[in-house]
Amino acid sequence: MANWKEFQEANKDRFLNELLELLRIPSISARSEHKDDMLKCAEVIKEKLLSAGADKVEIYPTPGHPVVYGERITDPAKPTVLVYGHYDVQPADPLELWHSDPFDPTIKDGKIFARGACDDKGQFYMHIKAFESMVASGEELPTNVKFIIEGEEEIGSPNLAPFIKEHKELLKCDVILISDTAMISLDTPSIDVGVRGLTYIEVEVTGPNRDLHSGVYGGAVNNPITALCNIIAQLHDENNHITIPGFYDNVLESTPDERALMAEAPFSQEEFNSDLGIAKEWGEKGFTTNERTGIRPTLEVNGIWGGYTGEGSKTVLPSKAFAKISCRLVPNQGSHEIEQKLISHIESLAPDGIVVKAKPHHGGEPYVTPIDSISYKAAAAAIHDVFGKDPIPVRGGGSIPICALFEQELGVKVVFLGFGLDSDNLHSPNEKYDIANFYKGIETIPHFHKHFAALSAKG
Amino acid sequence: MANWKEFQEANKDRFLNELLELLRIPSISARSEHKDDMLKCAEVIKEKLLSAGADKVEIYPTPGHPVVYGERITDPAKPTVLVYGHYDVQPADPLELWHSDPFDPTIKDGKIFARGACDDKGQFYMHIKAFESMVASGEELPTNVKFIIEGEEEIGSPNLAPFIKEHKELLKCDVILISDTAMISLDTPSIDVGVRGLTYIEVEVTGPNRDLHSGVYGGAVNNPITALCNIIAQLHDENNHITIPGFYDNVLESTPDERALMAEAPFSQEEFNSDLGIAKEWGEKGFTTNERTGIRPTLEVNGIWGGYTGEGSKTVLPSKAFAKISCRLVPNQGSHEIEQKLISHIESLAPDGIVVKAKPHHGGEPYVTPIDSISYKAAAAAIHDVFGKDPIPVRGGGSIPICALFEQELGVKVVFLGFGLDSDNLHSPNEKYDIANFYKGIETIPHFHKHFAALSAKG
Repeated sequence: MANWKEFQEANKDRFLNELLELLRIPSISARSEHKDDMLKCAEVIKEKLLSAGADKVEIYPTPGHPVVYGERITDPAKPTVLVYGHYDVQPADPLELWHSDPFDPTIKDGKIFARGACDDKGQFYMHIKAFESMVASGEELPTNVKFIIEGEEEIGSPNLAPFIKEHKELLKCDVILISDTAMISLDTPSIDVGVRGLTYIEVEVTGPNRDLHSGVYGGAVNNPITALCNIIAQLHDENNHITIPGFYDNVLESTPDERALMAEAPFSQEEFNSDLGIAKEWGEKGFTTNERTGIRPTLEVNGIWGGYTGEGSKTVLPSKAFAKISCRLVPNQGSHEIEQKLISHIESLAPDGIVVKAKPHHGGEPYVTPIDSISYKAAAAAIHDVFGKDPIPVRGGGSIPICALFEQELGVKVVFLGFGLDSDNLHSPNEKYDIANFYKGIETIPHFHKHFAALSAKG
Repeated sequence: MANWKEFQEANKDRFLNELLELLRIPSISARSEHKDDMLKCAEVIKEKLLSAGADKVEIYPTPGHPVVYGERITDPAKPTVLVYGHYDVQPADPLELWHSDPFDPTIKDGKIFARGACDDKGQFYMHIKAFESMVASGEELPTNVKFIIEGEEEIGSPNLAPFIKEHKELLKCDVILISDTAMISLDTPSIDVGVRGLTYIEVEVTGPNRDLHSGVYGGAVNNPITALCNIIAQLHDENNHITIPGFYDNVLESTPDERALMAEAPFSQEEFNSDLGIAKEWGEKGFTTNERTGIRPTLEVNGIWGGYTGEGSKTVLPSKAFAKISCRLVPNQGSHEIEQKLISHIESLAPDGIVVKAKPHHGGEPYVTPIDSISYKAAAAAIHDVFGKDPIPVRGGGSIPICALFEQELGVKVVFLGFGLDSDNLHSPNEKYDIANFYKGIETIPHFHKHFAALSAKG
């Protein structure tokens, strides 16, 4: 282990500079004008995998953005770790709220500010650098290592499922290791043992067949904005329960013991509110903030637009209004089932004179890693080696839709080893990643491989 | 009268071409980048007034867009007609819904398609051409004529009030004549005897101090879009009455006789619905469509926006959401009073964890022309001369906020002589004005001047 650490210590500035290089590429998967940036990003990752010591690297084209695959197989008898990550990032808008250019990474107070700094370039890149340091140490690697770095996670991985199905032999492994989640803090390390599923739809509400003068027609024609607001207002009841019929049918309720364990994680509601600048928290009655974001399903409006939104005023009664709405799901809610229930319910709320149509964007299933699995135990032991304490198992609020598919197709467990923080502004202006977390991750990962190999040999 | 008509007949193609020239200038008052177009438009109007026979024309600068004034005073003893119009137009977006360029007027099926074709360039320009034909006839004009053509009607005429107050002597007159309204049809001529007042505000709803990841925070933080939708959903009750406390306090209820008279205007609910492509009408319980748009106050959301509104999906829980909301007012609701009530009510609906701020855009008072006034009688007689039947007095739904101010400052009545149609797509894509209506207006206006002079002499 000493050799790996020495190599890491000697090369830390280079590791950081390479990450900054990756962050300069605006690999926004949702925007077609960035198609070339996606290709460029894939090429850079290929080079980095090769120079780190992969003995085979390939860029696989898909109907969307390409998948980068790399491997170093030293002994078929060893257990194999498949590292998953994604090189695509969320759109950076609203640009005016960034304090620095999202694609010109800026270091301030030991933090890297850039789109993708934490989600997920900074995190998957730790694995390439940890792998490089293990190879460079000259010691035999405890595991075979495979990498699959995709370019469509932020748009729902539409082409990854067919890729996995077609390349089961290539991707064969004993565990899937993902760094795309957060820990509580470097002082209180934690491991996400679950991610929520996702259903994401877009709603189009149509009133009159053209934009109307709100003076001439106002008061006599149902306004699609008002209709849309009425529909959205009906999606939660007075206790902030979601009103979609059958929405909670398959929710696996956590036991009192599980909830008691969750409650042990250090959390201050006051600090949470103060950090967000809100006077009071909000959410489903009967649950704490950590439960609301961890073990409960939610419904959020991610965007709304209609009518005149420019400077000044325009007295229009618009023809259409739109919303983007998503649900986070928990075991055992099915993404497709909830999508259908959500769409049916919203369409059923159309009032007189209004047509409501909803279409699915993308979705993904919830996922839970059992804490008695070898995968979790290896991750916990790695954390203990480096941080000197046991990690707290927590349920994360985000979604990594591909987890359930990985398990289904490859028959192995996913384990999360995330080094982000909740304050990293994922999907928001001023996304950042602490340099200390980046280095801590690189240091921890080799321990995971060591423990996973040892536990696999025993088990 | 014969000479005017001959001159009009001989010059109708030129009249039309001049209007098209005016329509080519994108005089959008709400957009600062069109400041030069506004100046150019004012200059063209000045030239046209001079060549039509005005003996004094001046462009008055204001802190916003300039006012064009012109006059022909032939005898101080004659009654004076002050024609009001506006050369500014609404923004043309959404541009993709136009079938032709909004500022490259296109003639199809006898209609001029262009932004401002009806509202109000096509209508105020009828007065300049009618005036030109009266002057060209060589006969003595029955009235003194003054013109005030402003450039800020579509943004609430912020600089016209001070202008009127400072130029009371210049604007002194016996009636204010405005063509900025519609008639039922050329077969069923009508005259608007009232316009509604207006209150227009913008609402800013703030939740967390930054955009958040909807997975990490969703379910535990009040979403400003949902909060805004809840607020908007509370502004109407189940009978579509407006719920703002005190909103109806000063509404002058129409008598059963007045409502019976209104009901005589030809109207087909089926045709109304079919024209708009809606399955069912909507509105305040207990009132007909014409009453809802004529004698009842309304509240409409003119625009809404928040979160991610681009292509694809983004799982954001936004920091802010916005709406533009306006009310149409009827006698004797006060614009400022309703504005305060609306703002107080909306701000009072802020739920936990949300800050709601509303600011006024602009407003205007409702206005009614008595049908026993000389002004109305002159307009009705002019219509009878040209159309061969009495006009139906109707209450229009739109707002011309400056009417109440004109009466207050100048002490005379406003009369509407509008030749638009409800189907002219004011404020919407594909605004149009029928060429037949343009010519009919030019033909009718001299009759108004003749009758107004005669009735004034008698009265």
